[in-house]
Amino acid sequence: MKIRINISLKKGVLDTQGKAIENSLNKNLGFPQISGVRQGKQLEMEIAEEDMTKVQEIVDEICDKLLVNKIIENYSFEVIK
Amino acid sequence: MKIRINISLKKGVLDTQGKAIENSLNKNLGFPQISGVRQGKQLEMEIAEEDMTKVQEIVDEICDKLLVNKIIENYSFEVIK
Repeated sequence: MKIRINISLKKGVLDTQGKAIENSLNKNLGFPQISGVRQGKQLEMEIAEEDMTKVQEIVDEICDKLLVNKIIENYSFEVIK
Repeated sequence: MKIRINISLKKGVLDTQGKAIENSLNKNLGFPQISGVRQGKQLEMEIAEEDMTKVQEIVDEICDKLLVNKIIENYSFEVIK
């Protein structure tokens, strides 16, 4: 199945890129109605596995070992196909 | 409303970071069942606007002007709250 892992900074962790984008949108492009911009990353991948419990285990393990810095980041995943 | 904009590389555009992650997962961490890793970014933000048509217009405009390189990237957005 095809999944998407969303990795975002935890609340309270300073997001300088998000802040820079927000400033640009507010001040340079004229969108004062936009606030709270947070930048994160996403990883799409195919996993040759049908059992959702197994997929959850794999996602937890690869996030733990490689993809996510759990001190400052949160992650979630969704099936996209 | 709170939205998430997903920005990903178009099909066929070389994704070196995704490839590096895939190699690590396959060879170093022992997950041969994972393939087709593509890295993208996501931006979460609040938009003080309730009308979905307006939100769509705002998203299209900020992606066009600032957030997305349309030559190599695609984007989509979803309401998350």
